[in-house]
Amino acid sequence: MANERPRVLIVGAGFGGLYAAQTLRNTSVDVLLIDRHNFHTFTPLLYQVATSGLDPSGIAYPVRSIFRRAKNVEFLLGQVQSIDFDNRHVVVQTNTQTLYEQYDFLIVAAGSVTNTFNIDGLEQFSFGLKDLSDAVVLRNHILKLFERAAWTPDADKKKALTTLVVVGGGPTGLETAGALFELYNNVLRQEYAGLNSTKTRVILIEAMDHLLDPYPQYLRDSALAQLRSLGVEVVLNEQVEAVTKDHVRLKSGTTISTYTLVWAAGVKASSVAQLIDVPLQRGGRVPIHPTTEVIGRNNVYVIGDMAYLEATDGRPYPMLIPVAKQQGMLAARNILRRTKGWKQQGFHYIDRGIMATIGRSRAVAWLYYRITLTGYLAWIAWLILHLIWLMGFRNRLSVFINWVWNYITYDRSVRIILEHKPYAPDQEPDPQNEKPVAL
Amino acid sequence: MANERPRVLIVGAGFGGLYAAQTLRNTSVDVLLIDRHNFHTFTPLLYQVATSGLDPSGIAYPVRSIFRRAKNVEFLLGQVQSIDFDNRHVVVQTNTQTLYEQYDFLIVAAGSVTNTFNIDGLEQFSFGLKDLSDAVVLRNHILKLFERAAWTPDADKKKALTTLVVVGGGPTGLETAGALFELYNNVLRQEYAGLNSTKTRVILIEAMDHLLDPYPQYLRDSALAQLRSLGVEVVLNEQVEAVTKDHVRLKSGTTISTYTLVWAAGVKASSVAQLIDVPLQRGGRVPIHPTTEVIGRNNVYVIGDMAYLEATDGRPYPMLIPVAKQQGMLAARNILRRTKGWKQQGFHYIDRGIMATIGRSRAVAWLYYRITLTGYLAWIAWLILHLIWLMGFRNRLSVFINWVWNYITYDRSVRIILEHKPYAPDQEPDPQNEKPVAL
Repeated sequence: MANERPRVLIVGAGFGGLYAAQTLRNTSVDVLLIDRHNFHTFTPLLYQVATSGLDPSGIAYPVRSIFRRAKNVEFLLGQVQSIDFDNRHVVVQTNTQTLYEQYDFLIVAAGSVTNTFNIDGLEQFSFGLKDLSDAVVLRNHILKLFERAAWTPDADKKKALTTLVVVGGGPTGLETAGALFELYNNVLRQEYAGLNSTKTRVILIEAMDHLLDPYPQYLRDSALAQLRSLGVEVVLNEQVEAVTKDHVRLKSGTTISTYTLVWAAGVKASSVAQLIDVPLQRGGRVPIHPTTEVIGRNNVYVIGDMAYLEATDGRPYPMLIPVAKQQGMLAARNILRRTKGWKQQGFHYIDRGIMATIGRSRAVAWLYYRITLTGYLAWIAWLILHLIWLMGFRNRLSVFINWVWNYITYDRSVRIILEHKPYAPDQEPDPQNEKPVAL
Repeated sequence: MANERPRVLIVGAGFGGLYAAQTLRNTSVDVLLIDRHNFHTFTPLLYQVATSGLDPSGIAYPVRSIFRRAKNVEFLLGQVQSIDFDNRHVVVQTNTQTLYEQYDFLIVAAGSVTNTFNIDGLEQFSFGLKDLSDAVVLRNHILKLFERAAWTPDADKKKALTTLVVVGGGPTGLETAGALFELYNNVLRQEYAGLNSTKTRVILIEAMDHLLDPYPQYLRDSALAQLRSLGVEVVLNEQVEAVTKDHVRLKSGTTISTYTLVWAAGVKASSVAQLIDVPLQRGGRVPIHPTTEVIGRNNVYVIGDMAYLEATDGRPYPMLIPVAKQQGMLAARNILRRTKGWKQQGFHYIDRGIMATIGRSRAVAWLYYRITLTGYLAWIAWLILHLIWLMGFRNRLSVFINWVWNYITYDRSVRIILEHKPYAPDQEPDPQNEKPVAL
């Protein structure tokens, strides 16, 4: 089993996995990167795909392109089914095959999924915003709703169809609520003659008495004021009790007639965390050492949203992209250090700040050195930083042009309802020819 | 039933229906435009979406955007189920409702669909290229095939997975074959280390002894030579007999191991033609008078691919976009003439030429005044004219930038496998609230 070059398996091509693989490119190890999608997704802009502002390909980057010039990085499109820690291999299911992939070091970075907390009907009737498919499904749904509302004579029904509810007062909730309101107000209202008399409602619901919990009070208040000045109805101190196809019932007893609930009020670790087979922490997260190694497993690292590591204040590091990136780089560097016989290093989070955008010229930012920005300045900072963070010149250009276009014209250009069935034979395994590869 | 303003129903927002509606915008009639999609598709560039060169939204334009400033044009997203000619209404099925829409004049422009001629397995296993969903399904399929080939140890199997067959020697067949070859040669070969030793084959099959039947011999020969110089294998005088998941059997007895058959060898009128309930012509097309009125129906016009009208040489007008556009404008103008009590006019086709592109710097064009162009000049002419024909500044800009990007980098930027299930409750009718609207 000994190999001249150690083999590092990375599960997940999100921010954590990608930065780990980047750190290992053209080093003395071989890397196999595994993901369910053939692309990395720039998740902070998913809400703009969902609200017709950007093309899906603008925020997706093919993994093979990223590593085109990295001779030691391979890619495998598939889902991890199980992990054999004794024999050090991972079982990966592709569309047609079961593969057994050997590792010397394993980095698991499968991220997080929407947490619906067993709320009645939420799983079936709500929309999440965790991956590109979610965003396209929500886009199609909203555009179909408006087509339907335009041909619905009943006034109450029409009102329900054009009432959009977003739950969660974090950045995703704020950004989605703001973008939905602008999509309606700047675009759809002008194109649906039958809706001119109907006021679209966008309602943002938050369980706490403030938005943006990790931010200072000044920015929380500013975000609330900016959202309300845009036209979004913000409801604080309120929780969802149950959801059906056509309404949402709140804990206070209030019922909202709506066909759209966007759930941005909770995430939990991906179920891949359970494959690690150690006692999990809150949110299904895997407890790790400061080196990002899993407590109780050898040669296995877990990073990003899936990992549970307490900071010096006793609270776990938040499920944020910068944490995932920095842990990904640390895990990769620690593996390299081990191959050289050096001591591993611990995680020290460099917090460069947090920001959230609310709509055209509206945002809040809490930057490095505790600089606070609001309104136009925060919005410009948000735009510039997100353009920089996007990967690849072509994606930056595409997103930039869409932003300029949307800003000048007030349009949202990707308003197409595009649905299709997958080609059926692709999903069938091919048992005669592609037997599981035995070790 | 009498209305001050006559109501014109247009079925189909393809080139014919769109140009009819454009001609009627801001006139003395009311227009209802009905389509299954909420966007118009620029079909000549579908093959570029299928080969990862363009975003779907680059060649799709929301119908409501086009008519945003036209006060007399309404849009309905739905499928025509039946037509009641006695009572002059059309029954339209939406996701959730059945609507009965009254007309004074009806223009049916539902276009054409792939004709699989009852060839064994073709319907199930081949890929068409008639709408945007087809293009995305083919794109996903090809990208998945290459992911699979990269992890297939068996050499024969690997070869079959990377062998792509295109059937049909018309422009769509040529363009698709050329673009598939370039996608592999310029992009995929560099990113799939496991495939370096495998030569991808792109095979173009044509039943006649020449490509591009309507073109002069000089251009047919040039197209053949350009395709072969690119690397595409062209097989003439050969037909498909049967297709399965993993091979194609030809009439000559040859069998090609392949998982991809793109069928560009035949179209027929949409099944909506049958709703007109008159004896149909070859290809299921509806016989019309030179005014574009249906023979044997009052106040009903059929235009474009669905219509059968013989030119002075006794041959029917071809199923081409310029014919559809010009018939759409004529039908609309004839309806306006009738509302004024004027005499209708007959169809005179203005043929501005035909062209087909084969790949980078490769094309043939047969233009107005019988100018023939080949190679680089034809390709530049093709690029410029297609940019002009695209609708909307934003789409032109998006396509132009992708073209420049792809030309400079040799890249194909939209290489994402994006599949998703539709949101289930959207498909359910809502019987309590949305009853069929009685007349």
